[in-house]
Amino acid sequence: MSFTYYRTVRFQDTDSAGVVYFANILKICHEAYEESLEVSGINLKYFFLNPKIAYPIIHANIDFFKPIYCGDKLEVQLIPQKVTNEKFEISYEIFIADVIVSKAMTRHASIDIVTRQKREISDEIDRWIQVLNQR
Amino acid sequence: MSFTYYRTVRFQDTDSAGVVYFANILKICHEAYEESLEVSGINLKYFFLNPKIAYPIIHANIDFFKPIYCGDKLEVQLIPQKVTNEKFEISYEIFIADVIVSKAMTRHASIDIVTRQKREISDEIDRWIQVLNQR
Amino acid sequence: MSFTYYRTVRFQDTDSAGVVYFANILKICHEAYEESLEVSGINLKYFFLNPKIAYPIIHANIDFFKPIYCGDKLEVQLIPQKVTNEKFEISYEIFIADVIVSKAMTRHASIDIVTRQKREISDEIDRWIQVLNQR
Amino acid sequence: MSFTYYRTVRFQDTDSAGVVYFANILKICHEAYEESLEVSGINLKYFFLNPKIAYPIIHANIDFFKPIYCGDKLEVQLIPQKVTNEKFEISYEIFIADVIVSKAMTRHASIDIVTRQKREISDEIDRWIQVLNQR
Repeated sequence: MSFTYYRTVRFQDTDSAGVVYFANILKICHEAYEESLEVSGINLKYFFLNPKIAYPIIHANIDFFKPIYCGDKLEVQLIPQKVTNEKFEISYEIFIADVIVSKAMTRHASIDIVTRQKREISDEIDRWIQVLNQR
Repeated sequence: MSFTYYRTVRFQDTDSAGVVYFANILKICHEAYEESLEVSGINLKYFFLNPKIAYPIIHANIDFFKPIYCGDKLEVQLIPQKVTNEKFEISYEIFIADVIVSKAMTRHASIDIVTRQKREISDEIDRWIQVLNQR
Repeated sequence: MSFTYYRTVRFQDTDSAGVVYFANILKICHEAYEESLEVSGINLKYFFLNPKIAYPIIHANIDFFKPIYCGDKLEVQLIPQKVTNEKFEISYEIFIADVIVSKAMTRHASIDIVTRQKREISDEIDRWIQVLNQR
Repeated sequence: MSFTYYRTVRFQDTDSAGVVYFANILKICHEAYEESLEVSGINLKYFFLNPKIAYPIIHANIDFFKPIYCGDKLEVQLIPQKVTNEKFEISYEIFIADVIVSKAMTRHASIDIVTRQKREISDEIDRWIQVLNQR
């Protein structure tokens, strides 16, 4: 039903309030996205460095339910969903010891990297969405 | 009507897609918040390091309208608003040469730093909200 | 002889030159240090959040031999060494597919967290140094 | 004699030890480098995004003399120096209220962005070095 990414919270993720800096949780969500792409057979180097089609984030939102500390063991569950032929969304739920601590979403547009015009989602992303929805 | 923060996009803000990494725009919004606090007379060191009351972000959302590049000159306009006695929100609009490129919001809870229980927003934050709304 | 930390390079680690931003390699070295502490039985939350003795970095240096890309599989080998009773150093070597790509060092002082005066390295850090040197 | 960059320490620069995370000082040094390039008339967007010649950092070192806190007002003085026709170094000294708190150096190689082979430093970088040494 979803992909799970395991991540220990690092010192650099925290701030002087003693907990994780809010925007860094979105970075951890993006890591989970990258890991899920790789697991489905996508080469990250080609995907992120010199693609023909790119999938920039056009919207993100996040809720924080509990403080997150250095050393905490995060379990990030993600599930992607096609919105239109040129858009997909990823939902993230983050747990520590089975308690949900944060929830997020990113919306991605599919664009031609040169013209930055809308393009159809590629077959490999289509497959990634399908595979993660069948698990 | 609002506070404006000026910020040049730095190399470290970008990623290998050649534009600013999405979560870094939220960091720039938080910088604008910090600057607005300081301008209204709040000592950032005390505010962020050893406060009695803290204002952790419990929700954030952001929309991206245009790609943002290294060297771009950002103008971040922010306006805070009280939601309840224990919550406030900040709206951010980011412009490059008068064109809006991104829009964001952060919602902050007011909590006792030791017990992490809800507390009323402090007088200095109250004043900050009022002052920024009168400009 | 040393501890090895495995780390996939993430999109957020890169910059618009298409490779990892230089200072982020030092962050990855620090992650390896944290992982090695945890493996030797140290609780990261207590170690980094509210310690009596802290080990701030007083010097760091790093050499870069090859460009590092998003998706690259890093192998970080580290070995700590006691310099004096109040100082230790950690050497890091970073490999991709058995080729060294970077080399770094961090020097840490042992200080009382309240007075920021020099203090003897704790027994747990002493043990961590010994254990990693016996492997 | 040198270029000075002014920078307020931000919440995101700190970690749960309550002070600036070590590697972030190197990021602030790089910001000073970018600002000095821009002041000497170099377009940062072209310089960092699609250059023919790039100047990756091949070595960096840094010393920390004092803890640095959120809200601190940093004054970063930098001075570049040509080492060979294909290499330059930048020295950085960071002050808070006239007290030195950190000192760093970055060494940059001049390379062809496509072949990654050594190339002579460009005329604009040559001029930047000369201008900053005459101030």
